[in-house]
Amino acid sequence: MSDKTKARSIIEPRVLKGFRDFLPAMEIPKKAIISKLETHFSSYGFVPIDTPVLEYTEVLLGKGGGETDKQIFHFKDNGEREVALRFDLTVPFARFLAQHQSELALPFKRFHIDKVWRGENPQKGRFREFTQCDFDIVGVDNAEADFEILSMMNSSFSVIGIEDYQFCIAHRGLFNAFLSHLGVLDKSTEILRTVDKLRKIGKQEVASQLAEITTSSEKAEQILSYIHKEDENESFLTTLNRLSVLAGNEEVHTKRMQTIYYYLKNAGIESHFVFDPSITRGLDYYTGIVYETFLTDLPNFGSVCSGGRYNDLASLYTKENLPGVGSSIGLDRLLAALEELKSPIVASTSSADVAILNTDMTSFAYYDTIARALRKTGLRVCVYLADKKLAAQYKWAENNAITYAILASKEEEEENRFTLKNLGSRENYPSLTLEEALSILQRN
Amino acid sequence: MSDKTKARSIIEPRVLKGFRDFLPAMEIPKKAIISKLETHFSSYGFVPIDTPVLEYTEVLLGKGGGETDKQIFHFKDNGEREVALRFDLTVPFARFLAQHQSELALPFKRFHIDKVWRGENPQKGRFREFTQCDFDIVGVDNAEADFEILSMMNSSFSVIGIEDYQFCIAHRGLFNAFLSHLGVLDKSTEILRTVDKLRKIGKQEVASQLAEITTSSEKAEQILSYIHKEDENESFLTTLNRLSVLAGNEEVHTKRMQTIYYYLKNAGIESHFVFDPSITRGLDYYTGIVYETFLTDLPNFGSVCSGGRYNDLASLYTKENLPGVGSSIGLDRLLAALEELKSPIVASTSSADVAILNTDMTSFAYYDTIARALRKTGLRVCVYLADKKLAAQYKWAENNAITYAILASKEEEEENRFTLKNLGSRENYPSLTLEEALSILQRN
Repeated sequence: MSDKTKARSIIEPRVLKGFRDFLPAMEIPKKAIISKLETHFSSYGFVPIDTPVLEYTEVLLGKGGGETDKQIFHFKDNGEREVALRFDLTVPFARFLAQHQSELALPFKRFHIDKVWRGENPQKGRFREFTQCDFDIVGVDNAEADFEILSMMNSSFSVIGIEDYQFCIAHRGLFNAFLSHLGVLDKSTEILRTVDKLRKIGKQEVASQLAEITTSSEKAEQILSYIHKEDENESFLTTLNRLSVLAGNEEVHTKRMQTIYYYLKNAGIESHFVFDPSITRGLDYYTGIVYETFLTDLPNFGSVCSGGRYNDLASLYTKENLPGVGSSIGLDRLLAALEELKSPIVASTSSADVAILNTDMTSFAYYDTIARALRKTGLRVCVYLADKKLAAQYKWAENNAITYAILASKEEEEENRFTLKNLGSRENYPSLTLEEALSILQRN
Repeated sequence: MSDKTKARSIIEPRVLKGFRDFLPAMEIPKKAIISKLETHFSSYGFVPIDTPVLEYTEVLLGKGGGETDKQIFHFKDNGEREVALRFDLTVPFARFLAQHQSELALPFKRFHIDKVWRGENPQKGRFREFTQCDFDIVGVDNAEADFEILSMMNSSFSVIGIEDYQFCIAHRGLFNAFLSHLGVLDKSTEILRTVDKLRKIGKQEVASQLAEITTSSEKAEQILSYIHKEDENESFLTTLNRLSVLAGNEEVHTKRMQTIYYYLKNAGIESHFVFDPSITRGLDYYTGIVYETFLTDLPNFGSVCSGGRYNDLASLYTKENLPGVGSSIGLDRLLAALEELKSPIVASTSSADVAILNTDMTSFAYYDTIARALRKTGLRVCVYLADKKLAAQYKWAENNAITYAILASKEEEEENRFTLKNLGSRENYPSLTLEEALSILQRN
């Protein structure tokens, strides 16, 4: 490849529409969030997996799906195979489960944090390349697994450092029982998609579309009254009971939701969860609980974490029944929200704790010795490597949000000492030993 | 997309040739290595960046390079743009530097750990999708930056837990001075590539190809004697001095290498570095120091970490001069090597420290309470969520390499106690309080 990178003329450095670079100021907090989530998911016994970015188009879209879907990046590879970039982490996971089921011990809890690609038109917080943080429990269909996903969703947000958020929960099975009671279950897919647009297109437009779908404005009204909570403060269980009656006293799903709520209360986290029957999720593979997550301070920003129970996701690839429940945090949208909120979570972009400034390149071996000693204590230490004036070095330390600088004169070097400067407070600690410097650095 | 994932008939779950899934048994150690490297790179003041997986083909390959390169995954997107999957992290970094130079404070130290794609034929330890761990210092051309990359390479291997490795160092500038002295500098690219194949095709074949390139078997012999060390134990500085003479007493590069070696000695890590003039690296963008890394116990496995100094990499995109030095760990090849060596580094695949077994689902709220309390101390705790016989649960814990199990009878639950079992030693600790259990768990 090297010959091709030789310049004939300058090529404009640019990225594709909907794609972007992450400079350190955003990549540092992004990585910090991912690392916190990974540690947190592991603390629940979830394990990581990885799947290829590129798959057979047929595997991702089903037979005959490849030609038509404009949202997918797909092409013929050099071996004439029809291939596509994954558009989510759920479909590859379903394929993975079917392919490796004999190697996995069920129930299987996995997480997968990585990029996916869709050709949709970029808008605020939406990109053609974006990162999803998926976590799922497969091989069991009960309230305990549903609860554990909700519990881990909740603690994930605290672990990231987000305080004001709300999980809006509904139950697809209960909604379908209601539609069945109403005699319109055969229209469920269209009804679900229409209801899913409520926040976008408003109540009136949803009503008119539902009337068209059900050919009955009365039924449209009944659906609207099912998905609408008159009283914002109606309790979780009151809403559940009201909906259960509307759904013809459906028992199985009602019981499931009561049990989940009991576990949420036992864990002391029920205040973060509301029953919101307008949540349906557009995707038709959901069969049970469904949920979306909203940041209290940005209610119109859309959901930053969504998912639900699906009981036959892998059926495209296997006859084995593999019930699952899972959730996905949209990391790019979450980052965009945190930026908009000017959250301190996206403001910690320091590249090092200490910068060792370069006042005389012939002392570099001494600088390196200090750096290695400090790193052993867990500090991040950056030696300034260029031969520039001190003013430029201070400016560089400031640009990198580094709090402490170390400088060493030849006299200090001879005595194995150096000067520590707090670049924020401008405090100066001359002629310190390593131990003395550490005691200052570690108390801050 | 949802309609398309509906099954008409079963689709064979499979991945593309040269691509692969990572099951937890390999993804857990892969992630552990990445996490250690990220923390380690950060301790040197290196910062992470991210770039798109997909770029304009012209940006990655230069003008007119798109049609011919069979190794590249490239295609026309839905907007008729010529796009390609990146084939390394170096070219996108060069584009990134040119595009964002006004936003970056030089010297700039970045790392980038992510996947790249090449359509080459898969072989042992080589895949079409693989992960590179790149780290570079840009904006400075001196021995100190060269040394810092070598120093961080060395400590990276210790941090991963690998003990027996050797860095083979050479200097492209010195080699070019030698070729110039020999009057064949205009053939340098072909000569470099031929020498680079030494380990693959052997000395005799290299000699015959060099004779053809230089049209002189005498010159071929001289090149061979330059790249060959008669005495395996020849010291770094002795080799350097010998080569310096062959290169016509070249001074600048010799001085640079002496300084680098002085720093390596000062850091006490010089024993890991040998001067090996047969290392040339195939890529022609290198201008100074170059290196490859070999595992002592797998000398024929190829280099697991390579790089060098390049002084005009970004010249395709900018007229600004941006000298750099960097290195890249080939993570998939390293993982394959560690597997072959049966290293303990790739054997730690436990999904949790403690499994809470499910003897009675009506006690789930109690199990969850224990789990939350244990997680607060940093333990990874997995509640068994299915309603299965205990024998199946023990089997599952074994498959997940979990050492401890917790079981709670109704009597124990009433007293807020439980039984702890060491699944390895079969030791049993009945009727413990949480504090008693923690003291056992934490001393192991």
